[in-house]
Amino acid sequence: MKECMDNVRKNVPLVHNITNYVTVNDVANILLACGGSPIMSDEPEDVEDITSVCGGLNINIGTLHQSSIEGMLLAGKKANELGHPVLLDPVGAGASRLRTDTALRIMKEIKLTVIRGNISEIKTLAYGSGTTKGVDADVADAVTEETLNDAIAFVKNFARKTSCIIAVTGAIDLVSDGEICYVIRNGRPEMGKITGTGCQLSGMMTAYVTANQEKPLEAAASAVCIMGLAGEIGWSRMQEGDGNATYRNRIIDAVYQMTGEDLERGAKYEVR
Amino acid sequence: MKECMDNVRKNVPLVHNITNYVTVNDVANILLACGGSPIMSDEPEDVEDITSVCGGLNINIGTLHQSSIEGMLLAGKKANELGHPVLLDPVGAGASRLRTDTALRIMKEIKLTVIRGNISEIKTLAYGSGTTKGVDADVADAVTEETLNDAIAFVKNFARKTSCIIAVTGAIDLVSDGEICYVIRNGRPEMGKITGTGCQLSGMMTAYVTANQEKPLEAAASAVCIMGLAGEIGWSRMQEGDGNATYRNRIIDAVYQMTGEDLERGAKYEVR
Amino acid sequence: MKECMDNVRKNVPLVHNITNYVTVNDVANILLACGGSPIMSDEPEDVEDITSVCGGLNINIGTLHQSSIEGMLLAGKKANELGHPVLLDPVGAGASRLRTDTALRIMKEIKLTVIRGNISEIKTLAYGSGTTKGVDADVADAVTEETLNDAIAFVKNFARKTSCIIAVTGAIDLVSDGEICYVIRNGRPEMGKITGTGCQLSGMMTAYVTANQEKPLEAAASAVCIMGLAGEIGWSRMQEGDGNATYRNRIIDAVYQMTGEDLERGAKYEVR
Repeated sequence: MKECMDNVRKNVPLVHNITNYVTVNDVANILLACGGSPIMSDEPEDVEDITSVCGGLNINIGTLHQSSIEGMLLAGKKANELGHPVLLDPVGAGASRLRTDTALRIMKEIKLTVIRGNISEIKTLAYGSGTTKGVDADVADAVTEETLNDAIAFVKNFARKTSCIIAVTGAIDLVSDGEICYVIRNGRPEMGKITGTGCQLSGMMTAYVTANQEKPLEAAASAVCIMGLAGEIGWSRMQEGDGNATYRNRIIDAVYQMTGEDLERGAKYEVR
Repeated sequence: MKECMDNVRKNVPLVHNITNYVTVNDVANILLACGGSPIMSDEPEDVEDITSVCGGLNINIGTLHQSSIEGMLLAGKKANELGHPVLLDPVGAGASRLRTDTALRIMKEIKLTVIRGNISEIKTLAYGSGTTKGVDADVADAVTEETLNDAIAFVKNFARKTSCIIAVTGAIDLVSDGEICYVIRNGRPEMGKITGTGCQLSGMMTAYVTANQEKPLEAAASAVCIMGLAGEIGWSRMQEGDGNATYRNRIIDAVYQMTGEDLERGAKYEVR
Repeated sequence: MKECMDNVRKNVPLVHNITNYVTVNDVANILLACGGSPIMSDEPEDVEDITSVCGGLNINIGTLHQSSIEGMLLAGKKANELGHPVLLDPVGAGASRLRTDTALRIMKEIKLTVIRGNISEIKTLAYGSGTTKGVDADVADAVTEETLNDAIAFVKNFARKTSCIIAVTGAIDLVSDGEICYVIRNGRPEMGKITGTGCQLSGMMTAYVTANQEKPLEAAASAVCIMGLAGEIGWSRMQEGDGNATYRNRIIDAVYQMTGEDLERGAKYEVR
């Protein structure tokens, strides 16, 4: 994983983000923190040019507009033409028909490298409808030690079916290419009290797969470990009276400061 | 007020926000800090589904677009059908015709639970035109100890006329259902040096009235006290060299950490 | 420069910002930090009214939409009618045809007071096409001690040709009205690891030229010195483990706390 990190810092991947307006600033700052470079553009007339100067594309459907959906499809097709990695973050798939339909349409029309979401969102994509409540995973869907084997099988199967890397994040994170599955146990539950840690991870993961195109599975898993480990490091620096706003900053700071050695020492994963 | 807080933390109200892109991230984080859960969506094709999975709706006109106005009206009508509380934050009403007209149209077409704004915005809604300068209240309108009696009468009267809870925030805050009026003296003037403390309060207030539907007036007044008290606690944690950016984080942190006992002890209000 | 700062704090210039949704919150907070007052609006139907209640207009093309382009042109023309200063920040000009064309169109249709960008963006505007990579300056274009004389000549010449103040920011900053050129050496390279320090500077610079209309060149140069000095002060307050998220807050905090004496003592510039 250290090598994946080195490649991001060395190559400074330029990532085109079509993402929601809620968490976009944090996505930009975590991309800079990890060693990438962000650019945002969703206007259909602008996206093809922008994607052409970038190395990878991060599509996040957290706040859709009619014109940004068109932008996502145009940018995705251009990225496919150019051979750039494309990540989809299906925020809120299952919570509305527009979100579910848009995510499914993007999966159909664009060759994706990675799909990253919570378990409810990914189940919605797999089964065509879901139980997502808002933008957080439904408790009934949660990946726990008890449901782990079934969840791994589900993720592997969906990765094979879609020919994508599937990254399901939650208390336990799963990242699979259909053959093997990283089971990752970094992170802290308090990260769920910050808006956009998932969006931030998607941005950073796009930088990782862009700078590590010969090993996208390890790159995606590395990004998940880094985010979780940053959550642990950030938490360890919290002082009395600090809450979720300060925690948000500490996590991005931890990504900024993390070394390859920190990552190798702190990453908690097994390969199944 | 402690019971209102307990209900928010126990019920985790899911709040649909159609809000401006300036302060949206802080609105999401303060909703998480107080124990609620935020989701943002303004696209007309998306809003009815999203509001249907939520418990309350927060409409903020801080940065209007033609399509988001349509989204506000569709979401508001759906929320009314479902019996969800709806809050209106008429940001900048009086500063432009579009803002004034949109706020008045929303008041006419949607049954609102609460309207929360500064005194200039609320006067604009009451009299149909205003003196708002930008998004801050006009000095001539300010609620002071000298003008307090008149201001209380104005707020009570407007609450009766609209059948809404009216929350006017400033140096002294007034929250009334037309019968009684909470007069609240929490907060610090330095909060005006942070963008979006009003927007944040509107988001949190929506969570409060959603989780406390049998006592919306007390819930709205509780949210005002919490925001002001968080401003006081956050200020007490400021260190040499800290400014408005750090203060912003400290306020959200203080909401995150506040207990019911802190609130009961720190709330400064009288009922008139 | 102290007098320019005093004028901003005394006059509290209200600045209308049509800016990107990535860094808009930081732009609002730095405007408040420096003593100005921000309002954001990009909807064509809203912008003329909003600009009319403001004193200056900040146009930033970081995330263009068809409707916001129309808003920029309408607001710019109204600001010209009213004699308000107008600043253009051509974010990403050279990276896409839409950005380049929009910046050139704004230059043609609106009388601008200041254009502020990185060297690649400004060269794109001067030569009609560019080598901008994303939103960061191309290394080949960088203003260094070796290329300084040529860069000064270029900036002076472009300022004369456009009858605007031209502010090129980077490791060395240049601000010229065509006659003289401020060469400024404040700032730190780590500022490039925060999204939006350029956008923030543009917002603050608009406040400065608005409150100092009889000396816009000195006002623009003052804003550049303040931003760079805030970067130095903010950096001096960084603690072990702090990264770019905390640094972002510290810079805005430093603007908030800076006195005229701090500025006079810390500003590092020569006039050429």
